[in-house]
Amino acid sequence: MEDKSKFPVKKVLFICSKATLESVYACFIMANGARMEGIESEIFFTFFGLEAIQKNKLDHLHVATVGNPAMHMPTMIGGLPGMEALATKMMKSKMEKLDIPPVGEFLEIMVASGVKIWACKLAMEMFDLKREDLIDDVEDILTVGDFYGRAEGQGTQIIFI
Amino acid sequence: MEDKSKFPVKKVLFICSKATLESVYACFIMANGARMEGIESEIFFTFFGLEAIQKNKLDHLHVATVGNPAMHMPTMIGGLPGMEALATKMMKSKMEKLDIPPVGEFLEIMVASGVKIWACKLAMEMFDLKREDLIDDVEDILTVGDFYGRAEGQGTQIIFI
Amino acid sequence: MEDKSKFPVKKVLFICSKATLESVYACFIMANGARMEGIESEIFFTFFGLEAIQKNKLDHLHVATVGNPAMHMPTMIGGLPGMEALATKMMKSKMEKLDIPPVGEFLEIMVASGVKIWACKLAMEMFDLKREDLIDDVEDILTVGDFYGRAEGQGTQIIFI
Repeated sequence: MEDKSKFPVKKVLFICSKATLESVYACFIMANGARMEGIESEIFFTFFGLEAIQKNKLDHLHVATVGNPAMHMPTMIGGLPGMEALATKMMKSKMEKLDIPPVGEFLEIMVASGVKIWACKLAMEMFDLKREDLIDDVEDILTVGDFYGRAEGQGTQIIFI
Repeated sequence: MEDKSKFPVKKVLFICSKATLESVYACFIMANGARMEGIESEIFFTFFGLEAIQKNKLDHLHVATVGNPAMHMPTMIGGLPGMEALATKMMKSKMEKLDIPPVGEFLEIMVASGVKIWACKLAMEMFDLKREDLIDDVEDILTVGDFYGRAEGQGTQIIFI
Repeated sequence: MEDKSKFPVKKVLFICSKATLESVYACFIMANGARMEGIESEIFFTFFGLEAIQKNKLDHLHVATVGNPAMHMPTMIGGLPGMEALATKMMKSKMEKLDIPPVGEFLEIMVASGVKIWACKLAMEMFDLKREDLIDDVEDILTVGDFYGRAEGQGTQIIFI
């Protein structure tokens, strides 16, 4: 039988495509967890996921309360003004209790521990974003082609979130 | 030209992160389909996906009717009390006709055929869940680091759903 | 140190499972971008994603305005009749400015450049679809088992969208 430990995960390359707080946290927790295991870890922010690295937006991400049956709120209530804010506040306070930092601070910690942060060129054009709209920690702006280049190497996993 | 059949998919490792019935079924159908091909298959339940292995919740998952344009319902109607229940009932009856079992039974079948079921430690803490809240078939509770350990080996694919 | 360039991404196999315009475009842009790099590229359409290859639906996909906090619309407004249509129109006009073709034309371009298009057998049965409901460019209808067969070979990445 093959010795699996000879083929560990060496690199994870996340595509962060959504702006919901739960998606962004799922991505950050997995990317950070990989670094803690000594695995190379990079995040490519695209489409709505770009909000998580926009200076003026990253602290204002929300939990999706409608279209998310797990919230166990009747949709009409989930859609009431204030419910999304409430769910978001609850998630943030829960994260704080578990010592999980807010988005901006989480990004800093990840970058300090070696997670590489990329932005998608096409999505930037789609949303009329400039380099200065993004946090300084963004390593570079990549085309889709560049992205596939980042996925080279044995033991690499691309994970779309 | 390379002989591709020398490098088959040997293992699929799913991350089940959402509680919508359509996400959970997509995950189960792919995980089960892999086992039927002799491929190793494991599911790591995290975030809202944990509901699919919670004793008191797994039979009450819903289809998302809002935030899902494929439902072809105007959003105001999709949000009316009862519409989500109706869409859920329709999906369940359709699944039954195709001989696809309900969530609880599907889990049992998968485990019997060798699919391994894991729960995410951090998400359990986030939702204040205890081991006894989960179905007995859960193999163990894993950290994100443990999860990456499960992905070792050639021909492994991590699939985030 | 390992020479990563010896292990490039050779094939990407997308699972297109949702019908929102933003999901479908994310999938198409990545699949097409792969071909442009000489990478093999295939898309397996399943669940609601099947709408993107249904003759009578592919030109009517919508952006999700509710359940998508990135729209920055209060949910009650996002749910108003017309808002989804408006967001969809805005996205389509933005895509046009960036020279990104509409869904039907994008499919033709991809197929012409060698992207393979597959439909999921089980999902077709779920939605009572026949072969003639799908665009002619669909290569074949596959079981989940067949799908894993398509993922054979070194340097293959399965990406679930």
